[in-house]
Amino acid sequence: MKTRITELFGIEHPIIQGGMHHVGYAELASAVSNAGGLGIITGLTQGSPENLAREIAKCREMTDKPFGVNLTFLPAFTAPPYPEYIRAIIEGGVRIVETAGRNPEAYLPAMKQAGIKVIHKCTSVRHSLKAERIGCDAVSVDGFECGGHPGEDDIPNMILLPRAAEELSVPFVASGGIGNAAQFVAALALGADGINMGTRFIATKEAPVHQNVKDALIAASELDTRLIMRPLRNTERVLANAAVDKVLEIEREAGSSVGIDDIKDLVSGVYPKILQGGEMDAGAWSCGMVAGLIHDVPTCKDLIDGLMSEAESLIRGRLASVL
Amino acid sequence: MKTRITELFGIEHPIIQGGMHHVGYAELASAVSNAGGLGIITGLTQGSPENLAREIAKCREMTDKPFGVNLTFLPAFTAPPYPEYIRAIIEGGVRIVETAGRNPEAYLPAMKQAGIKVIHKCTSVRHSLKAERIGCDAVSVDGFECGGHPGEDDIPNMILLPRAAEELSVPFVASGGIGNAAQFVAALALGADGINMGTRFIATKEAPVHQNVKDALIAASELDTRLIMRPLRNTERVLANAAVDKVLEIEREAGSSVGIDDIKDLVSGVYPKILQGGEMDAGAWSCGMVAGLIHDVPTCKDLIDGLMSEAESLIRGRLASVL
Repeated sequence: MKTRITELFGIEHPIIQGGMHHVGYAELASAVSNAGGLGIITGLTQGSPENLAREIAKCREMTDKPFGVNLTFLPAFTAPPYPEYIRAIIEGGVRIVETAGRNPEAYLPAMKQAGIKVIHKCTSVRHSLKAERIGCDAVSVDGFECGGHPGEDDIPNMILLPRAAEELSVPFVASGGIGNAAQFVAALALGADGINMGTRFIATKEAPVHQNVKDALIAASELDTRLIMRPLRNTERVLANAAVDKVLEIEREAGSSVGIDDIKDLVSGVYPKILQGGEMDAGAWSCGMVAGLIHDVPTCKDLIDGLMSEAESLIRGRLASVL
Repeated sequence: MKTRITELFGIEHPIIQGGMHHVGYAELASAVSNAGGLGIITGLTQGSPENLAREIAKCREMTDKPFGVNLTFLPAFTAPPYPEYIRAIIEGGVRIVETAGRNPEAYLPAMKQAGIKVIHKCTSVRHSLKAERIGCDAVSVDGFECGGHPGEDDIPNMILLPRAAEELSVPFVASGGIGNAAQFVAALALGADGINMGTRFIATKEAPVHQNVKDALIAASELDTRLIMRPLRNTERVLANAAVDKVLEIEREAGSSVGIDDIKDLVSGVYPKILQGGEMDAGAWSCGMVAGLIHDVPTCKDLIDGLMSEAESLIRGRLASVL
């Protein structure tokens, strides 16, 4: 398949594995890239610029295809040493960066000068336009369905993608809620030049997470995610579990006076326990609504090959036949 | 275009104009049917079975194509004389009914015996399966994006439609948030056999509503709808305005003790004022997120012709060309 995204990133299939905290290691990124998609190492998950440099080197040994690094920009008071992270990316020869979180404008010149293509994750049309204006090469348009941070507008991809298509000139991929070929084709129809998948890639053989997590994704229906931290205007979509029920109870009781300190223990620092220890109720962990459409744990190659061949059948078969 | 929905209803294009309170009169229904879609008269909006009989007769004079009637089943304590409404439908020779609201099971035998095809509106997979089980011929799967009542699950169509496709045997149409050809093709890709549009049909020349309403739909962005009555578990998506701000304020202040009496004046009986009087702040009125994708007020024929030809271009052009 050839789209503006495959051209921009020099990849075979317009399928990106989005940056995910504590999941985006070389094992997963290289598997996705080897399958013809774009694998992404999560920068901050590595803990330091030195570790990121090592992870990039490791990924380079595992694939000769393009892969990227995710850099999430946090509020200033918790800012990691971004210039050093960017140096590690540049010196590691990485040519694709997925930015997320706050406005990446301050860091764009350094990256552009090094020939890096930047795709920024946005949950609204106005932020997408801002990303285009400051020079991002592409946008990852992230709908209400997504795991992690959907923003506060609650606009699903069936609306957000065609709205983005009306406004954007740069290419964009559909992010949030995507997991099967029907959705892939729908995203292309809605104007996207590819897809970004997060949760779906956690349920793959190569994802370095505990089997309990993969089993939980298969067991979950589309009704099994919850929105927490809404009163803090830092909404996160997570898998429903006992810890999340507790967060929601605290939020309800505290009302508008709830603070991050009230729920901190339940929403931070739990990923290692959940992902490596498999303690599924250890805290709140990001999960998209697409969990309801995940029914197996294939290799990344089988997942991507299946998406591509089924998308082709859908376009040439079902869609052509209704005309 | 030929799908299971065009076959089931004997229509040219798989495009249904969903039942809308105070909008679904013969003028709009006949215009949609004459354009090859399926127009729907809103039963309860007529006020009595006798009036419905007259509206059906009027519509029959305005079109020789199939059209349907919407019957919304309300809680028992406010139940209109449904058997009489159904008699008016049968005696009026209508062969398609869109049911909505509560379970239509009690009324199915009478309708089926008269050869009526029934499509039931559902906001969840479990209700869709229930509709199939009790003998509905099709389902209108209504996503979180929709105007009016999206239910309490908040599952958007990008997730809800492929989930419905996994589970349902009867044909279904995508409802909620749909207004352009890209979304139409996306819905087909996601497994739907057609689309149902409400809000989009209000912004047509033939819709019997005040010009101020059509102007408001054009002016609105996708961010301009609000969810009211959530604390009552009778959530309704409406266009943001001063009256709606007031509803939300009352709901916030009253918290879980808010009752329908507290907001009744702001959410009921306002349609005649808004739709015929054009008093846009007179109360809360249903509106889907698709308002953000509405930029013109075409005739129903131009709207439907445009959807069909653009959908074909999209399938034969853009989608075929990426392969």
